[in-house]
Parts: sequence; structure tokens; C-alpha cells
Amino acid sequence: MSNTQLPFKGYAVTNPKAWSDFDVIEFQPKNFKDTDVEIAITHCGVCGSDVHTITSGWGEGEIPPLIVGHEIVGKATKVGSAVKGIKVGDRVGVGAQIGSCLECEACHTDNEQYCPKGIDTYNAEYPDGVKTMGGYSTAIRAHERFVFPIPDAIESKHAASMLCAGLTVYSPLVRNGCGPGKKVGIVGIGGLGHYAIMFAKALGAEVYAFTHSDSKIDDIKKMGADHVIFAKPLAQKLHLIVSTRDVADDMPLVDYLSMLWVQGHMIQVGLPDKPFPPIPGMAFTSNGSLFGGSKIGSKKEALAMLKLAAEKGVKPWIEEMPMSKAGEAVERLKKNDVRYRFVLTQDLM
Amino acid sequence: MSNTQLPFKGYAVTNPKAWSDFDVIEFQPKNFKDTDVEIAITHCGVCGSDVHTITSGWGEGEIPPLIVGHEIVGKATKVGSAVKGIKVGDRVGVGAQIGSCLECEACHTDNEQYCPKGIDTYNAEYPDGVKTMGGYSTAIRAHERFVFPIPDAIESKHAASMLCAGLTVYSPLVRNGCGPGKKVGIVGIGGLGHYAIMFAKALGAEVYAFTHSDSKIDDIKKMGADHVIFAKPLAQKLHLIVSTRDVADDMPLVDYLSMLWVQGHMIQVGLPDKPFPPIPGMAFTSNGSLFGGSKIGSKKEALAMLKLAAEKGVKPWIEEMPMSKAGEAVERLKKNDVRYRFVLTQDLM
Repeated sequence: MSNTQLPFKGYAVTNPKAWSDFDVIEFQPKNFKDTDVEIAITHCGVCGSDVHTITSGWGEGEIPPLIVGHEIVGKATKVGSAVKGIKVGDRVGVGAQIGSCLECEACHTDNEQYCPKGIDTYNAEYPDGVKTMGGYSTAIRAHERFVFPIPDAIESKHAASMLCAGLTVYSPLVRNGCGPGKKVGIVGIGGLGHYAIMFAKALGAEVYAFTHSDSKIDDIKKMGADHVIFAKPLAQKLHLIVSTRDVADDMPLVDYLSMLWVQGHMIQVGLPDKPFPPIPGMAFTSNGSLFGGSKIGSKKEALAMLKLAAEKGVKPWIEEMPMSKAGEAVERLKKNDVRYRFVLTQDLM
Repeated sequence: MSNTQLPFKGYAVTNPKAWSDFDVIEFQPKNFKDTDVEIAITHCGVCGSDVHTITSGWGEGEIPPLIVGHEIVGKATKVGSAVKGIKVGDRVGVGAQIGSCLECEACHTDNEQYCPKGIDTYNAEYPDGVKTMGGYSTAIRAHERFVFPIPDAIESKHAASMLCAGLTVYSPLVRNGCGPGKKVGIVGIGGLGHYAIMFAKALGAEVYAFTHSDSKIDDIKKMGADHVIFAKPLAQKLHLIVSTRDVADDMPLVDYLSMLWVQGHMIQVGLPDKPFPPIPGMAFTSNGSLFGGSKIGSKKEALAMLKLAAEKGVKPWIEEMPMSKAGEAVERLKKNDVRYRFVLTQDLM
């Protein structure tokens, strides 16, 4: 355990009507427990959820000031006495979840992301009433269950966005059978989608990337996709589709479902503000297909993902900028002007 | 092979605006091939699909005259030289599918119900242009792949409705993991739902039956359900839900999805005329659940279901009436005035 006293301050939205204006504020971290790790943050990815939250797209009525950011990498500066496998100085990360009950069936079966008492990394509350604050900041404390050691082979700037964007696609890929011999479709080639292409390839699948953007074709091929698809019919061809698209209005769900092989799964990980168009029951009968969702991933999956990324050299396509430019980053992300993920670097200490 | 010449006639709807008026007509059967079985029909169940079709609920614009019925049991009167395992005089059945290409991946992997060239037992066409006519009739011819021997232990009147209603719930139960240690919810306790309760129990699951009808509680318990549920919260409790409900308007899909355990499946086998209400993406994130469909079942599954029914004594709750009362049967079924399946008995020969 170290006695270093970290400052706890970060870039916060303080006015919900000025969602891209960030002011530096100090905040109260959670009370440190012997199962906790305290982390000096060096990098934080910029996630679509950050934009959703600060623009109130999810209608949660959050009250500023709020520090967002849940793709966090840094160095452990203080490690509780009950923590195993992490020591002061280790590079570690935190994703979109910072707490759970640790006692329910979900927590006991490596499904802690589905714990009914899960706590989000920002814009939530610990049981003791302390508000959770995210990674556009100097430091964070977290229970060891939600702290992931970063392998030496992965640079911190690359690890950051893996911890939400990467894990959010890695988990549904492995849980829905992605692997050698499987044909996997990826819909929406942005931050999540570019990870989905790379992890599906790393897992051994044949990858079909769906895009409407001519300008991304070269990128998609470099990411490793075997096929780039516009509107070609693919009836019953794919074993799995992972959709990262976060616009619901004109989503051709029925067309995508028709591309699935018998009992194939379409997993939607993008979370549009609006519901999906009504689906006729008949959409599922030509192949017995299923449509579903997924929520980030478990620690077990995060560690497996990081191991795979280290072994196969999976590297996200990122643009780095200093944390003080968070406002520019969220504005450009809202306009989809990013190829393919922003990572903020620490400039507050 | 027998030389008996069966008459081919049946009870047909001849005016689409008088959907419950049945007239006896003669019809042209498919050309008999050496892979076919000809069957003298003794029983035919009355399926919701029959009512959907003759009331044009599915908007397929079918042209009368049309003989419906696809829960067919009878005796083989003629058996093609290439047919294996069926001989003249055997009790056999035909369900809702009467043809497929027999050559594609679906057909080669016991998924022939998902063959893109599948042929429905009525209101469809064979490749040679002959129109398919259903089982409210004297006789039918079918390729052996779609002819199921009926075990001695199952009476014909009981076997009939198993071949669509039974198989339509049996297939998604076994394909989605129903078995010992699993908690399975059944939504909608009608013809399909009462089979779903009985087969889920026969497969060893703990069964939760959902109903809004006080008057069905005693029946549901007699069918073997472990729990009868009205609106009790069951967050993350069920491993699988099979919904046979065929009304979409007020379907509380989000509530049902919330009852599923991590990565649980809700399989909708009822096919409402209208699409389901729009589903928000968030409906799937609390548990990584999936919503999907299913289509009848394969021959392999039909034979396994009949074996299970014979071994466990599964018997449907039926009301028999002569085939000439088909009009009364479809009218009562449309009003849900049936507990729980009508079976028509032959009276044309």
C-alpha cells in the first residue's frame, strides 16, 4: 500500500444545456476499502455513452456536475490489503462498470455485468451515497473485481478503449459462438464495429463488414474483414451478426435477420435513443433466428480479451488528444467525425 | 404398394368472404412418386393457422377453393418403392410442411423446416404446379420425409394435433435447452401452450405457466405446470420462455424479457397478424436476453416428440367432432372457445 495522496479532480459538465463545455472540478472519491485499488489515470477513451449521457439522450435526468469517461487506464497508486494480483505501480484499467453486489448468482457465475445491483462507472451512486465519477479525471478508486491488469504487450493508449468498446463486442462474440468456421457479420463500422471486425478475426471467424460508407472500405479491409457488404443478399449465410449501429429509425432489422443461418443470433450492442421499428413475428420464422442484446462484459471476459489482443496484436485505430480537449472530442464524436476512437491523455497532473 | 384408388375430396372454403362455409369438392393430388406415401385420412386437427389463412389474416391473397388442415393422421394406403420404414396399413401423420428441396444445407442438417424451398401442406404449390390441399379431406400424398409413423401407444385422435401444435412448441423447447434444472415459462395457454406445458414437463423442466384466465388455473395444474403466474415479478428467473400468444397489441415483451436469466431466450411461436410493439434496445441489456422465433420442427424432432409422448403418456386435451362440422370448429377456435384443440374425424368415406 502506498500513502501517495492523489488529487481527485476532473473535467466535468456543469450545465446540462452546455454539454460540451467542461470545467475542472474537485470531487469526492468512494471511501477506500481493503478490496479497492486507487488508480492515477493516464488515458481515458471517449465512448458514445459519454455523449449519450451528457446530451441526456438516455433521458436519465442526471444532475451536473458530472465527469464522464469509462475507458480508463492508469497506474495503481494504492492497493487494499485484501486485493490479490495487483500491486502499486501496475498498469491497470477500469471499464464501464465499477460495482456490483458480488453475492448474487450473476456475480457468482462470471456474469457480474448483469448483476441487478451493478453500478456504472459514472452517473451512478455507491451504496453509501457517494456519486460515481468517470475517467476524464486524475484518479479513480474501484473494487478489484472491476480493475483489469493490462498486459505488457498492450500500450496504455491502446488498452483504454478496449475496456468498454472492445469488451462490449468481445463478450457477445464469444458468448454467441464466434470462432473458426463461423461467418460473422458486423454492422456499423465505428468505434465498436472496428473492434468487432478485429476481434472476430482474432477469434478465427470469416468476417462480413456491413457499411454504407465508401470512404471506409480501405480501412475495413486493413482491419481484416474478409468481405465488405453493401446490400448484397446473403440469405441464411451468417451464423452471427453483431450490430453496433446506434440509429434505430431506418434499421433494416428484417433484412439482417433474414441473413442468419438457422437459429443464428443478431446481437445489438449499439443503443439507439429510440426503440427499433416494430418487428413482425414472421421475421424470425424463415430461420428460427433470434435478436438480442448484450452488456459490456465480465472481468473474466475482459482478461481473456486483453490476452487475445496481446497475443494477436489487436490494436485499435485511435486519435489521441489531451484531456483538456474533451469538449472537442465529444462534439466530433457526436458528428461521427472520428476514425475510430478518441483517447484522452492526462493533462491535469 | 396397393392399388386401392382413394377418392381425393375434402371440405373447402370456396368464397373468401364466407370463411366458415365449407363445401365438399374434389381435387387433384400431387403426382405419385416412388418416394411418396398416400394416406387415407382418419383425423385432422384444427390449427390457428387454418383460421388465419381462411380469414386472410396473413394477407396472402389465397384463391379459393382451398382445403386447409395440417394436423393429419391416417393409414398408409400406397407406399412408393423407394420409401423405407413405412408399409401399407401403417398409421402415419403429416404436419404443416409437405415438401422441401431435400438438397440444401438446411435439408441435410435436419433443419428442413427452414429450407428456403419448403412447401406448406396447404395453400402452396408443388414445383409441378399442383396446388397443395390440406387434411379436412379424404386423402393426401406426401414425400416420405414429411410422413411420420405414429407409435402404437398414441391414439390417432391424440397424435393429430401433435404434428403441428405439438411439434411447434417441442422444437423450440429442445433447441433452446429445456430440460432438468431449467425453469421454463409458457405464455398463452391454448392449443400450443397446453402442449408446451406438457412437453416442457416431460422434458424435465420446472414450468411456469402465464395466464390471465382464472378459469384455466385448474386445467393448467392438471397439465402439470409447477407454477401459475399472473403478474408476479420474476426478474432473471427463467431460462427460457415460449410464447404461443398470437395477439401482439398489448404484449408486454419488455416485462417478459426482464424475467429471463442471463442470455435467456424468449421464443415467440404464436404469429400475430400485427407486428410486435417497438422494443427499446435497453430491453435486452439487463440480462443479455434474446427474442426469436421458430418454425414447426424437423422430421427428426417429430419422431423424438412422438417417442417422448408415447413414453411419458403425453395426451392433448381435445374435443372431437366430425369433419362436416369444420365450420363450427373454426368459428369456435376464432372465438377462443376451445379447450384445447379440436380434432375432426373422417366422415366423407
